[in-house]
Amino acid sequence: MALIVQKYGGSSLESAERIRAVAERVVNTKRQGHDVVVVCSAMGDTTDELLDLAAQVNPVPPAREMDMLLTAGERISNSLVAMAVASFGAEVQSFTGSQAGVITTERHGNARILEVTPGRVQEALDQGKIAIVAGFQGVNRDTRDVTTLGRGGSDTTAVALAAALGADECEIYSDVDGVYTADPRIVPDARKLDQLCFEEMLELAASGSKILVLRSVEYARAFNVPLRVRSSYSNDTGTLVAGAMEDIPVEEAVLTGVATDDSEAKITILGIRDTPGEAAKVFRSLADAEINIDMVLQNISSLESNKTDITFTLPKADGKRGMELLATLQRSEDWDDLIYNDQIGKVSLVGAGMKSHPGVTADFAEALRDAGINIEMITTSEIRITAVVRQIDLAEAARALHARFELGGDEPAVVYAGTGR
Amino acid sequence: MALIVQKYGGSSLESAERIRAVAERVVNTKRQGHDVVVVCSAMGDTTDELLDLAAQVNPVPPAREMDMLLTAGERISNSLVAMAVASFGAEVQSFTGSQAGVITTERHGNARILEVTPGRVQEALDQGKIAIVAGFQGVNRDTRDVTTLGRGGSDTTAVALAAALGADECEIYSDVDGVYTADPRIVPDARKLDQLCFEEMLELAASGSKILVLRSVEYARAFNVPLRVRSSYSNDTGTLVAGAMEDIPVEEAVLTGVATDDSEAKITILGIRDTPGEAAKVFRSLADAEINIDMVLQNISSLESNKTDITFTLPKADGKRGMELLATLQRSEDWDDLIYNDQIGKVSLVGAGMKSHPGVTADFAEALRDAGINIEMITTSEIRITAVVRQIDLAEAARALHARFELGGDEPAVVYAGTGR
Repeated sequence: MALIVQKYGGSSLESAERIRAVAERVVNTKRQGHDVVVVCSAMGDTTDELLDLAAQVNPVPPAREMDMLLTAGERISNSLVAMAVASFGAEVQSFTGSQAGVITTERHGNARILEVTPGRVQEALDQGKIAIVAGFQGVNRDTRDVTTLGRGGSDTTAVALAAALGADECEIYSDVDGVYTADPRIVPDARKLDQLCFEEMLELAASGSKILVLRSVEYARAFNVPLRVRSSYSNDTGTLVAGAMEDIPVEEAVLTGVATDDSEAKITILGIRDTPGEAAKVFRSLADAEINIDMVLQNISSLESNKTDITFTLPKADGKRGMELLATLQRSEDWDDLIYNDQIGKVSLVGAGMKSHPGVTADFAEALRDAGINIEMITTSEIRITAVVRQIDLAEAARALHARFELGGDEPAVVYAGTGR
Repeated sequence: MALIVQKYGGSSLESAERIRAVAERVVNTKRQGHDVVVVCSAMGDTTDELLDLAAQVNPVPPAREMDMLLTAGERISNSLVAMAVASFGAEVQSFTGSQAGVITTERHGNARILEVTPGRVQEALDQGKIAIVAGFQGVNRDTRDVTTLGRGGSDTTAVALAAALGADECEIYSDVDGVYTADPRIVPDARKLDQLCFEEMLELAASGSKILVLRSVEYARAFNVPLRVRSSYSNDTGTLVAGAMEDIPVEEAVLTGVATDDSEAKITILGIRDTPGEAAKVFRSLADAEINIDMVLQNISSLESNKTDITFTLPKADGKRGMELLATLQRSEDWDDLIYNDQIGKVSLVGAGMKSHPGVTADFAEALRDAGINIEMITTSEIRITAVVRQIDLAEAARALHARFELGGDEPAVVYAGTGR
């Protein structure tokens, strides 16, 4: 008998019919002899509808009130799932984030979990009940106000609860049946992985894989909570994310997969003075505006001018704001030019096996060259190589790398219907 | 400077536009120098939509989960009103029932308020903020579970908060601009009342007037909280419900109005034995099934048979269940017959002035006779006369009484658009 935390996303709960299907799965897990805690996201488009209503009454709504509003979505799905579970004859109790002991910082809209004290949840489990917990929400320790956890909040709730309860596994359900070697919509012969380690999953998530939110993987790694990515539409065992890279025997370490990301843009500053503090000024200005920059490339300076070029990537969503900030900065600087380009894409190869295979970077570059794709920027980590290419080349780059490193499988990928939230 | 509690019903909050209109009214009240606490119902049809979803996942949903579900509706309207108020530049803070200190019994779906400890609300007021409180909901003292207050719950929240805060007035907003001498849809020359006492309002509410829920009026009377019935669509001062009947000077006591009710049915038992305990058996059986019976009429028994007839009214909604119960009972009794009739209506005349005008009952009967309407049953209280008539005669009966007692006014009644919730 194990203790299993199951997290269901919005697309798995988008209708009464889907909620009943989820409830049946939950009850079946319980009947197999396991203790079950369920964490729910808001139903389908609920959150977007609430955001839309808020925008209509106040374009700049107070963050505290926004949290009160949005958490209603998870309360609705939470209680409906509890009702559906009860209809299958199981004992069940629902909990808000606050009732489940999810204590957070006070930062409304993007609170961090400080601790989880799931006394009431444990009590319900001890009584043989299935516990249903509203995801995405917590309560500020000091003011007892309701908070939300930001993007990927429900995954984080599930992982944090699993850690606090000492769960054996945290299952993350969506409309995809596991982690693939590539996005099957781009690479048709992408293969589902049975298992990968936390570090590999972190690199994939950081490189554009949408299957798990970076933050929840970081949390799972920190508390060593095994994650299982599954589909709520199938009985496939999915993909297990568990274990540290160090524990993988060298001869078993392989290349995990290819990730793509077309959500970033590129900014180039031409002719910035190559003296200490010039680049720092740029990066400080962006950091103060909470714009995350990613890949940074600085060429060596030209000897005669003592000037250099800096290129970096940032989310397209922050592109306009970033360029406005830099344009302001430019007025007091003697840069030669400031160039914005959002027609780029990032392709990454990830895998613990990279450490023990020295030729990977060369193979990576050759694969793209053979496909006639130009590499605009390239960076590497211990277990990842990332290249920036033109956006129109991104899919072909992913296919070329996937083929070159023989990541494909024989079975076709399975992707289920749903909103893919 | 006064402390005013304002309660807005679902039809006043049915869209973003209406929410902004309510917010503007709230902010204007604050700018007139008053402290303002706002109690919100759920938006428009939200509650019905949630009930519908619940029915789809479980036809017999657990009451605790139902309360968790339904309270989401008031959390949504509550936070949206707070956002809208903020957009008009006022300081504002929203509170759930629990945060506002609404402590209730544990009876899910129909909890009673045990006490209100509005420390956080008072604190917000002391800081110059407008406080927005979710109506209809509270928290069970023992288990800290969320509860709902049943029908008219938001009105009750408003009155209870007003009592606990020592508010000067509790304004109840809907789409009608006050209490009328009759339903203006039935009696075209119905006149808006400027003021009436709690007892009169209680009798009107008990006699079919929908403007205020009986329970909230009882609460207001018990704690002596002046109520003001107003429309959220106009600036009319509405109708003040305040003061005890005893305090009205005899010469100022008048007849208040006519109420109609077509929601009841009539059951007659013919030939029931007239011995102690026979009628009690009938009423106990209905009471155990939580069916409220209202008017009861028992004829004197016939001398030869020692049998009598009993007639009583009950809500049409309970008619089928009530008849099934009695049909079961009938098998072991020697009743002559059991008759159900839902083509009836109740018309009532209410007013403190009745006490000092002995001829009112005679006038009442004559008015109906002159209109050719037969009285099937009649009961009276100190300040009310109620007759059961045929349902098709109900409107004409109301008009005849309204005219006979000269309750009409010169100005036409004003009824505003809305869902009339």
